[in-house]
Amino acid sequence: MDPMFREVERDGELDAVAVEEPLEIRVDGEPLSVTMRTPGHDEELALGFLYGEGLIAAARPVGLTADFAANAIEVAGPLLRDPGQRRFYTTSSCGVCGKGALEEVAAVAGAPLGPGPRIARELLASLPDRLAQPAFERTGGLHATGVFNAAGELLWSREDVGRHNAMDKAIGRALIDGALPFSERLLCVSGRLSFELVQKAAVAGAPILVGVGAPSSLAIDLACDRNITLAGFARRGRVNVYTGADRLVD
Amino acid sequence: MDPMFREVERDGELDAVAVEEPLEIRVDGEPLSVTMRTPGHDEELALGFLYGEGLIAAARPVGLTADFAANAIEVAGPLLRDPGQRRFYTTSSCGVCGKGALEEVAAVAGAPLGPGPRIARELLASLPDRLAQPAFERTGGLHATGVFNAAGELLWSREDVGRHNAMDKAIGRALIDGALPFSERLLCVSGRLSFELVQKAAVAGAPILVGVGAPSSLAIDLACDRNITLAGFARRGRVNVYTGADRLVD
Repeated sequence: MDPMFREVERDGELDAVAVEEPLEIRVDGEPLSVTMRTPGHDEELALGFLYGEGLIAAARPVGLTADFAANAIEVAGPLLRDPGQRRFYTTSSCGVCGKGALEEVAAVAGAPLGPGPRIARELLASLPDRLAQPAFERTGGLHATGVFNAAGELLWSREDVGRHNAMDKAIGRALIDGALPFSERLLCVSGRLSFELVQKAAVAGAPILVGVGAPSSLAIDLACDRNITLAGFARRGRVNVYTGADRLVD
Repeated sequence: MDPMFREVERDGELDAVAVEEPLEIRVDGEPLSVTMRTPGHDEELALGFLYGEGLIAAARPVGLTADFAANAIEVAGPLLRDPGQRRFYTTSSCGVCGKGALEEVAAVAGAPLGPGPRIARELLASLPDRLAQPAFERTGGLHATGVFNAAGELLWSREDVGRHNAMDKAIGRALIDGALPFSERLLCVSGRLSFELVQKAAVAGAPILVGVGAPSSLAIDLACDRNITLAGFARRGRVNVYTGADRLVD
């Protein structure tokens, strides 16, 4: 059976549920993070996570050793900075909202993205319908991130119980393939648009991010700051556009 | 305006979005955690988080000082253990799934819960409809946790952009009111059932947890281990029961 599912007995019948297990990412033997994830594409997950944190810029110089029995991945190789200095965990005063909070929590500083593609609003609204979610269809319990070209063709997608993991996997795949930055790509997620997802999209250079669910205030702030087109509630041919509407043509 | 929302301009109109901002919980000046949360009920959030991690057993001996300008809460007072020893971040081998993973990630060891109430399956299925979600109705962007008595009456509910925060707030409220453990209570969440949510319910002693979405494999494992009735996909009068079906009467 696919490692993403497990069969359970439910109300006297067999049912498939999404597998959730911890994955520890270690650097030189020291734990860097533990994430609850769906097994599969673990190397992509680790690479995408390290990239989103600004710890690596490419897949090549990093060696990964997966220890499946321990649910761990050991990272060896030069990192761009000491992972212990993650800004997220530093203590600094910030404003109650907007820029202050952004500066406090941003993992990676970044410049606004370039113009990127211009696409039809209708195409943007249709991306969730084009997002492959085979494991979700079996279990109803997984988030997905899809990478599309500007014509709206799905290039690849990844699923996970954690929405941030699904995006890390999709970005990790691109890192392995040398397909970053996503300057001419569209990202689509199956759920809500949190700050964290916009941050990962920004680091990957994706100018357009659309989701099926609602954005948060800080997601909108960051999208505005980085010149990202952020759109939510993409359902039934409609979509709400919060920032960067200049990339859309009617 | 309510601090949980912010008005944004969207497609030329004003729209309300859920506020997301960091909250740092500090112990003796040292950062313990940073969570992206919706402002409001921050003390409940901090207390619920500390309780779920096994760091406090009651609200009374702990002093909380909120620093709203810094989005931080300072915790003073005796903790039950050194927070630096959180098992989640220790490195230990575990099996690929089930018990091994459970032991690795469980924040707090616990015994199976007692029998608790017996309720009608129909009542369990109806709890999401009884869950108050005023901020979600405005924004579509918040998760909720509700605490119900065995008759299905909503006692209180809390909302947040993070599903774990919504439950921490609901449990923190109970801690302040001396209403724990939840031996005769039902918990209902607006989304999916992750391991983390079952763990928080288990620590709070809640024998019955129902959600609108799907459970993960590890959520089911933990519910089984702790004798919790775990039910998902509660929609339109139906509900799927994964563990602890003996608490249900038809």
